Amino acid sequence: MIPHHRTDDLPATGAWRPGEPVGSRRFHDVAPGRRFQLEGGGSLEAPCVAYETWGRLDERAANAVLVCHALTGDSHASGRSGPGHPTAGWWDGLVGPGRPIDTDRWFVVCANVLGGCQGSTGPASEDPATGRPYGSTFPVVTIRDMVRAQASLADHLGVRTWASVVGGSMGGMQALEWAVMYPDRLRSLVLASTTAEASALQIAWSHIGRMAVAADPRFRGGDYYDAAPGDGPWRGLAVARMCAQVTYRSDEVFTERFHRTLLHQLEFSLDNQFDVEGYLDYHGLKLVRRFDANSYLRLNRAMDLHDVARGRGSTATALARVRVPALVAAVTSDGLYPPRQQEALAAGLEAGGVEVDRVEIDSPHGHDGFLIETPRLGPRVAAFLDRVTPLDHSGARP
Amino acid sequence: MIPHHRTDDLPATGAWRPGEPVGSRRFHDVAPGRRFQLEGGGSLEAPCVAYETWGRLDERAANAVLVCHALTGDSHASGRSGPGHPTAGWWDGLVGPGRPIDTDRWFVVCANVLGGCQGSTGPASEDPATGRPYGSTFPVVTIRDMVRAQASLADHLGVRTWASVVGGSMGGMQALEWAVMYPDRLRSLVLASTTAEASALQIAWSHIGRMAVAADPRFRGGDYYDAAPGDGPWRGLAVARMCAQVTYRSDEVFTERFHRTLLHQLEFSLDNQFDVEGYLDYHGLKLVRRFDANSYLRLNRAMDLHDVARGRGSTATALARVRVPALVAAVTSDGLYPPRQQEALAAGLEAGGVEVDRVEIDSPHGHDGFLIETPRLGPRVAAFLDRVTPLDHSGARP
Repeated sequence: MIPHHRTDDLPATGAWRPGEPVGSRRFHDVAPGRRFQLEGGGSLEAPCVAYETWGRLDERAANAVLVCHALTGDSHASGRSGPGHPTAGWWDGLVGPGRPIDTDRWFVVCANVLGGCQGSTGPASEDPATGRPYGSTFPVVTIRDMVRAQASLADHLGVRTWASVVGGSMGGMQALEWAVMYPDRLRSLVLASTTAEASALQIAWSHIGRMAVAADPRFRGGDYYDAAPGDGPWRGLAVARMCAQVTYRSDEVFTERFHRTLLHQLEFSLDNQFDVEGYLDYHGLKLVRRFDANSYLRLNRAMDLHDVARGRGSTATALARVRVPALVAAVTSDGLYPPRQQEALAAGLEAGGVEVDRVEIDSPHGHDGFLIETPRLGPRVAAFLDRVTPLDHSGARP
Repeated sequence: MIPHHRTDDLPATGAWRPGEPVGSRRFHDVAPGRRFQLEGGGSLEAPCVAYETWGRLDERAANAVLVCHALTGDSHASGRSGPGHPTAGWWDGLVGPGRPIDTDRWFVVCANVLGGCQGSTGPASEDPATGRPYGSTFPVVTIRDMVRAQASLADHLGVRTWASVVGGSMGGMQALEWAVMYPDRLRSLVLASTTAEASALQIAWSHIGRMAVAADPRFRGGDYYDAAPGDGPWRGLAVARMCAQVTYRSDEVFTERFHRTLLHQLEFSLDNQFDVEGYLDYHGLKLVRRFDANSYLRLNRAMDLHDVARGRGSTATALARVRVPALVAAVTSDGLYPPRQQEALAAGLEAGGVEVDRVEIDSPHGHDGFLIETPRLGPRVAAFLDRVTPLDHSGARP
């Protein structure tokens, strides 16, 4: 199985760890010298977030845009690959000089989420209390915890109010919580391929990913950081990623790209025969090299728990806290975060009195459309930002 | 993980094995005293198929209907549960006395497929050459091999020509191959939620199921039949089944049925929190009790390999062999076998000169719609059979 790929050098964790090249990362102590309380009741001692910035904050700190990443993203939203950044920016088509979110104009910030594995405190980080990786003891964090950590970063950067908070999928969950938790700390909101609450279908896939990882004996209940290369929970994480990879795309895209193309002359065996099988193996193992199984479980759980209504009475009550214009983008072929979710979100925001710019991207690319269709999403985002982030009171403009 | 279910008594295989109650099964030796050659080049020594029948074959053997089962089905298409049949017939709403395929009128036959695990020769069967279960040595069979075994059964039963061959999903693949391989041995064809060729998306899910099973160390490469209860590949097979269970349904059904209902008071942990998680665990383990992991891999592979064009020039050439009227049914919300496949199939049959009765079932039940929507599918099938299976030359009618 997975015969065409080397597995004996797969790291036990793909997490970024101290001592590796920092690349463009910077680090912010969220709660220096104290414990950071989590929504779920747990706490973390002096966690940090890794972040990157592009552009310059203007004198009035009025041109700051926060970009929030999705499940397997990180702080490297824009820019080339290089030491510390094995891949180019995950939203490079949307964020950069001359791009729709133009870093010549905007001061753009992107932080790795709390619980993640690319520099922010997560399960692969050292627990100060033990000097060992948290592993199985790392608590579940919520989207709201991630956002509170980002708010601390905003304070540190001198950003009282974001011109916009922008995100897709899990990034959109964070952006939405920003608008609900800190309604006066942003002037606009861009929500792509996201939802006000995780659906049963999303939770189902999340559960299956957890089961696949937990079923791997090399997961060792979450304490696998001492494992030798090739002896970590790569099989389980790869299976989880393969599932995700299919749910992120669509029948149309798979048919067009792979059809029934064979890898070699057909054999009537269980070994890989079809191109699409090789593709899945490749993507499964690719994630293993850059991600951490414990983070994968916890961030998926954070998404399951995402529900703006929790503790706020109802979805309507929660959405009524939002006071700023919102762009809500849907991809027609998204089966995982289907357009009905974005329609419900847009309608809920409008019912609360918010101006909503609905963007429907007619595309076969499914959930990954928010990453792939930047040529179509970008101009709409740029126009929205132009329109809804007016001059500040001084008349200064970045 | 899977905390609410007992796992220490899970059998290493859920296959039916000699010595267990036979229930309504009968057995037919497909190749008595000789080897049965397989399309893939392998062979099986004296395989058998387990089958059931309902109703009576008329004097002219003109009222026989073959029902073909899907991936995890078996010969028990109709009737109650009881010894040897842990569940009621899988198509009980369609097949039975007074049902759309009325067993008071039709002589209905359903056989467990070759490579299956409910009485027909499969990986859990004893290899006559070794006296041990085939396990890892069992070859991949194809849909065409299944059909050739069924043709031997038809000969044995005295059925020269089926009034109809009927199937959904993998059952539809068999029905279609019947019409292509033996065009003069049937008078009509009912194809529900099926396709002329497996798509890249279907192969992708099949691959993920294989990977999940193979990743389970208790799979032991396929030789697990000696394992103690609880020590078989139940985790891998359960994960594979959970994936399938989700792809068989739809966002709409999951939302309506489960929404975000909790199993108990919310905890911020990785343990099961949501109703849908318990549902998936339940169905994953339920399959383990009645199925065999090796069969699961091979039948999925048989579906991947399904392509009527193989060795016949093209899909059009293959479909042009079909000479009988066909009912082709699609379920609107089927994301795994999407309506585009049934439309292509119907159009291909029509291009070959065949009369096609297209049935579109507007239903949220997804791929499982062909099993669930029998109240809507049934009357269309009954009317189709009435119309296209005319009196035979003698004027006799069952």
